[in-house]
Amino acid sequence: MTGFEPFGNSSMNPSAEVIRNFPANLFDKHQLRLEILPVVSKNAGETIVGLIEETKPQIVIMLGEAGQTPAISVEKVAINWLDFRIADNSGEQIQDQPIIKTGRNAYFSTLPVRAIVDKMNLTGIPAKISYSAGTYICNQVFYLAMHTSLKQTVFPKCGFIHLPSLPEQVVEKKQLTPSMSLETSIKAVITALQTTIELYEFTR
Amino acid sequence: MTGFEPFGNSSMNPSAEVIRNFPANLFDKHQLRLEILPVVSKNAGETIVGLIEETKPQIVIMLGEAGQTPAISVEKVAINWLDFRIADNSGEQIQDQPIIKTGRNAYFSTLPVRAIVDKMNLTGIPAKISYSAGTYICNQVFYLAMHTSLKQTVFPKCGFIHLPSLPEQVVEKKQLTPSMSLETSIKAVITALQTTIELYEFTR
Amino acid sequence: MTGFEPFGNSSMNPSAEVIRNFPANLFDKHQLRLEILPVVSKNAGETIVGLIEETKPQIVIMLGEAGQTPAISVEKVAINWLDFRIADNSGEQIQDQPIIKTGRNAYFSTLPVRAIVDKMNLTGIPAKISYSAGTYICNQVFYLAMHTSLKQTVFPKCGFIHLPSLPEQVVEKKQLTPSMSLETSIKAVITALQTTIELYEFTR
Amino acid sequence: MTGFEPFGNSSMNPSAEVIRNFPANLFDKHQLRLEILPVVSKNAGETIVGLIEETKPQIVIMLGEAGQTPAISVEKVAINWLDFRIADNSGEQIQDQPIIKTGRNAYFSTLPVRAIVDKMNLTGIPAKISYSAGTYICNQVFYLAMHTSLKQTVFPKCGFIHLPSLPEQVVEKKQLTPSMSLETSIKAVITALQTTIELYEFTR
Repeated sequence: MTGFEPFGNSSMNPSAEVIRNFPANLFDKHQLRLEILPVVSKNAGETIVGLIEETKPQIVIMLGEAGQTPAISVEKVAINWLDFRIADNSGEQIQDQPIIKTGRNAYFSTLPVRAIVDKMNLTGIPAKISYSAGTYICNQVFYLAMHTSLKQTVFPKCGFIHLPSLPEQVVEKKQLTPSMSLETSIKAVITALQTTIELYEFTR
Repeated sequence: MTGFEPFGNSSMNPSAEVIRNFPANLFDKHQLRLEILPVVSKNAGETIVGLIEETKPQIVIMLGEAGQTPAISVEKVAINWLDFRIADNSGEQIQDQPIIKTGRNAYFSTLPVRAIVDKMNLTGIPAKISYSAGTYICNQVFYLAMHTSLKQTVFPKCGFIHLPSLPEQVVEKKQLTPSMSLETSIKAVITALQTTIELYEFTR
Repeated sequence: MTGFEPFGNSSMNPSAEVIRNFPANLFDKHQLRLEILPVVSKNAGETIVGLIEETKPQIVIMLGEAGQTPAISVEKVAINWLDFRIADNSGEQIQDQPIIKTGRNAYFSTLPVRAIVDKMNLTGIPAKISYSAGTYICNQVFYLAMHTSLKQTVFPKCGFIHLPSLPEQVVEKKQLTPSMSLETSIKAVITALQTTIELYEFTR
Repeated sequence: MTGFEPFGNSSMNPSAEVIRNFPANLFDKHQLRLEILPVVSKNAGETIVGLIEETKPQIVIMLGEAGQTPAISVEKVAINWLDFRIADNSGEQIQDQPIIKTGRNAYFSTLPVRAIVDKMNLTGIPAKISYSAGTYICNQVFYLAMHTSLKQTVFPKCGFIHLPSLPEQVVEKKQLTPSMSLETSIKAVITALQTTIELYEFTR
């Protein structure tokens, strides 16, 4: 499970906070690897590919931040396209380019996105299926993880979840856009992981 | 301190939940009266006026729900006007009428609204001064509380704070509009009360 | 009838464009004075007061811009308060001050706001009654116009209408917020003026 | 060039109005076929496929309505997925199904989307590249048009453009969401067609 470091004008990223504060003990029957990725296009891509090749995971859940959104967005599709609205943390701003020149146009998440969203809603967490993960590093990492997963002997359940900004970030930016508390986001990610484990009866 | 019962199509109201779950023990040097008002124009008005006349409070903080908003709204002004977008819980829908025919056009909150908002923001809670409390029962109760307060021997610090919907309500309505967790809203109301007590050095 | 010059980061103001492009010939049975006010707190206030004292109008319709809003906002209330989010065009940024120290807290528009909004909607123009004209120079000018009007021998029908940004402004700011075409805004203002003239049977 | 009939609770569709009011004479050096598609999943799919096979077009521009959005959305990608939030006009509500079981996951528009958006912005029209055409009949028709185009001897420039709701629709729904005037939408579609013709030097 991965999150991202802060980017843009913010000093925090909800996905990094969820990773840092994740109650791993709830999943002690399983091996959990928690990583925070750089918001640098080249490095983030290499890191996610390396992690999947190294750990041969059964489940890959990547987390990122979707500013301005009020609900958890469980992503359905990763597209083969980069178009950065702002530069990444290395200063690079890629526009109108494919992630992999000869790659497929898109991959669909292999997480049970409908079941995850339904379960989140049942527990009172605002969540929806999203049909665009954007064209920034979140979508890039999601696409590359799917691309790499397909080549593994055991194809993992793999997908991306966007989290709203934290209340503290919204204050920091002085733009009163929607936010979600860290507690709710953590609860949402626990739900996503549990739903995936239960549905596919993953055991140690 | 007051909240409101649920109204419209919702089974909850964040202001009632804050009142029910408020950590009164934090304020045990003061006498705290916590009440939940009906969302019925006539009754709500009579109740708030009766409460102020009965308890002769030093501070009156009224809480209500502002759907669709992502931040705490500390209200600056109550206007002498009723214009209900939806019927109240008794089925009455008042339009284009003053609250008190011979009343002033508006009252300004006597809470330290700027200090409260600044303190909330300092603690990472999205909050702003709002210059419209609407034209529903929230504004009515706010206006009547100000009107009644002015007649008291000791004029209380008196104002209204709107809270965003709870995450559970947003799911219930199947409209993924902004929300705020109960924990954050309670923290915000504690901040408002503490700031007012400290600023005016209210002691028992 | 007045509009405002551009302010903030924009090179246009829909209210100035409506004034410049207003089809005055439609109202040739009446004397129409069209003015563009500066977005400078002190000057704007003096200008609107001077205009009313000089022209002794039967109707005063002031226009301004409300960025981010998708609909015409016919303002119901002007409050005695200044709190500028950004500096005015002279660089002055007033915060937390009354417009007139001994003035009333608020004035209600004397335009037929409900009839105007209903008529706009009937002709397919998105419009609503707004209960806050903000705390910037729009609200200031509205408040001062009401304040001055009250002292006139013949009290004019007087009010404020906020217009959405123009499509060109939204492109200029590179923020794809809501906008309204100049044609629709002009149609809306014609409707407001006609409705007021007809309702009160103003004749030359 | 195609639009859609009204759907949901609306009596109008901006895309149908653009088709009906399109100044075809501006393009009299080219053969222009203007059609309005039904908002019925099965029929809309058959109609667009039939039209492409019959007319063997050089350019296919499909138009649809995106409620709630304030800007023209030039769509970049069509995904192989159906998930209807509301039933279509025949009452059918498809959920979580591919459009073509063995089809590619996604197609990228072959219109010059960047050039079209830049040109629209240059002429003051709020427009952006969108990376999700939704999962309703708009996306379905876009996907099927791309799928069919690929099999043609001469592969046409093919893409989809979402238009904001009309001001009249926003009033009709009594929800003051963003809108765009018909004039601006027509201007936008002219720009899209001209840009595509000029860029590829299509001549009769």
